[in-house]
Amino acid sequence: MSNAITIALDAMGGDHGTDSVIPAAISALDRHADLSIVLVGDRDTLTHCLARQRVVEHDRLRIHHASQTVGMDEPPAQALRGKKDSSMRVAINLVKDEVAHACVSAGNTGALMATARFVLKMLPGIDRPAIISAIPSSVGHTHMLDLGANVDCEAEHLLQFALMGSELARAVEGIERPRVGLLNIGEEDIKGNANVKEAAKLIAASPLNYIGYVEGDDVYAGGVDVVVCDGFVGNVALKSAEGVAKMIGNALKQEFRRSWLTMIAGAIAYPVLKRMRTRFDPRRYNGASLLGLRGIVIKSHGGADALAFGNAIDIAVKEVHKSVPSRIEERISALMGQG
Amino acid sequence: MSNAITIALDAMGGDHGTDSVIPAAISALDRHADLSIVLVGDRDTLTHCLARQRVVEHDRLRIHHASQTVGMDEPPAQALRGKKDSSMRVAINLVKDEVAHACVSAGNTGALMATARFVLKMLPGIDRPAIISAIPSSVGHTHMLDLGANVDCEAEHLLQFALMGSELARAVEGIERPRVGLLNIGEEDIKGNANVKEAAKLIAASPLNYIGYVEGDDVYAGGVDVVVCDGFVGNVALKSAEGVAKMIGNALKQEFRRSWLTMIAGAIAYPVLKRMRTRFDPRRYNGASLLGLRGIVIKSHGGADALAFGNAIDIAVKEVHKSVPSRIEERISALMGQG
Repeated sequence: MSNAITIALDAMGGDHGTDSVIPAAISALDRHADLSIVLVGDRDTLTHCLARQRVVEHDRLRIHHASQTVGMDEPPAQALRGKKDSSMRVAINLVKDEVAHACVSAGNTGALMATARFVLKMLPGIDRPAIISAIPSSVGHTHMLDLGANVDCEAEHLLQFALMGSELARAVEGIERPRVGLLNIGEEDIKGNANVKEAAKLIAASPLNYIGYVEGDDVYAGGVDVVVCDGFVGNVALKSAEGVAKMIGNALKQEFRRSWLTMIAGAIAYPVLKRMRTRFDPRRYNGASLLGLRGIVIKSHGGADALAFGNAIDIAVKEVHKSVPSRIEERISALMGQG
Repeated sequence: MSNAITIALDAMGGDHGTDSVIPAAISALDRHADLSIVLVGDRDTLTHCLARQRVVEHDRLRIHHASQTVGMDEPPAQALRGKKDSSMRVAINLVKDEVAHACVSAGNTGALMATARFVLKMLPGIDRPAIISAIPSSVGHTHMLDLGANVDCEAEHLLQFALMGSELARAVEGIERPRVGLLNIGEEDIKGNANVKEAAKLIAASPLNYIGYVEGDDVYAGGVDVVVCDGFVGNVALKSAEGVAKMIGNALKQEFRRSWLTMIAGAIAYPVLKRMRTRFDPRRYNGASLLGLRGIVIKSHGGADALAFGNAIDIAVKEVHKSVPSRIEERISALMGQG
């Protein structure tokens, strides 16, 4: 592989499959001059889809055939055993074989996790992959992990998440000492469950810039760079936040449609409301990294459209540029050497 | 006690103490003709505060002296052992002694929980109190519990929460068969941790109207009446939601203040934005019930102002009218009889 970046896309995954992936790929190639893309999936389907977009295969946009597709509700174990030629599996294989520097999939999260872990293996010192994503805050964004890969975590896992999250924030945001907070239900030392209290001790004893417990609202206030929690809590917190944002958005629409007077007010306020919508557009935050693997795997939301999928590609490009997995590996090996 | 309702207020609790409680009490008496209030706290302070509001003690507004105050950060065990004449403890005692039908406190949550449990005791068949509150949804509101009383729950506790939450929704909302959902990180049966899966079996086997797993965003979408979760998850979810709502509110303000053009747009849109603010005003949702006790105890947010504290009083009035604890007791004893 040269200096240029190659990214494999699971072109058949997600609710919209090629309809999202192909336009996203084409526009990502425009944005990144050093990028090459491998579309993984059924060759005939992909050739046909490219033709519809008046595009043919070229140096930077190639098709790699895969005969199977993992269903969005397919049990991970079944996908792992029975779909060895799925677009998802083949895209991950390309990362393992160093044909691609990263892969992006909007497919079934469980299957992606299981397959990536099986094919790529974990970094030394990391027991489990964790899902991390940037989340909008009042002053920029906060990185939060785990967002659903691990439903039962021990304190030691939360420490590993803290290390990985901190290194990712350092790499992609250029923050020298990211502020790491542990999600809890109060900021006092006596609060929280046994696991969280134990994790607090471990993280406080590490060289990380640990700022202590943070609460659910702190994620959005912007005083912390990396928020660590178990996957159950993280997933519920994230989806609750999405639910509230949606409810407020719908209520705003409703209120502005109430009468012709409010509709006029809405028309006048439109540019401001549009800026708001852009600022918190979940598509601009689409793309979560599966951290802890020996390779870069980005999970796009299953319902992602081309814009959202494009954002996930951009995240992959950034993590390749910043060599996130090797940085995590180095960091952990340095810490182990110290320990 | 006659048909009239008497409510004891911990007049010294919360960040604002009497400044919130006394105006809230005076306006609650205006709203509820059948209500009497007992202000619990230092008699001199309370007499002085009433005088400043040009009010004197009367039939429906009495002072009950208590010499101590529980600090907002005081450890619960210390408050329980060392503050036997605190405004919080005495207000709860009045419920136990049947002088008051309910009490409301904006004080230290941990101390309130511990004291209420110690003084009032649990209903038969209930192991632990749970904190429940109404949360705004797109179509009205959802009741969610536990919001932070229990950081480690077993499946059996989640079943108890489901029973109590369902009965509360039946009592105060008049919904015959409230839809009960169990908070999880996916709607498929295979998702979730062992505890949640076990609880799902127990709740599904109960006579409740169990609709299955719900996710964080479902709380706000409005398809469920009662959402059950452990206190750690519930607290994080609620605070995350509050954090997002605040962030969006602040961003809206910011965007409308960007230039004189947007300020004019903001002025024109003001009535609509004000309606929005009223609709989701957290003060209108202030007041969480400590369910499972032999008595009604309402926890107000520590930072509640008079309007917010007044809402907590209204919740107490409603629960007294609907005899929530006896209804829960009857429901559980009926179920146990069946079991």
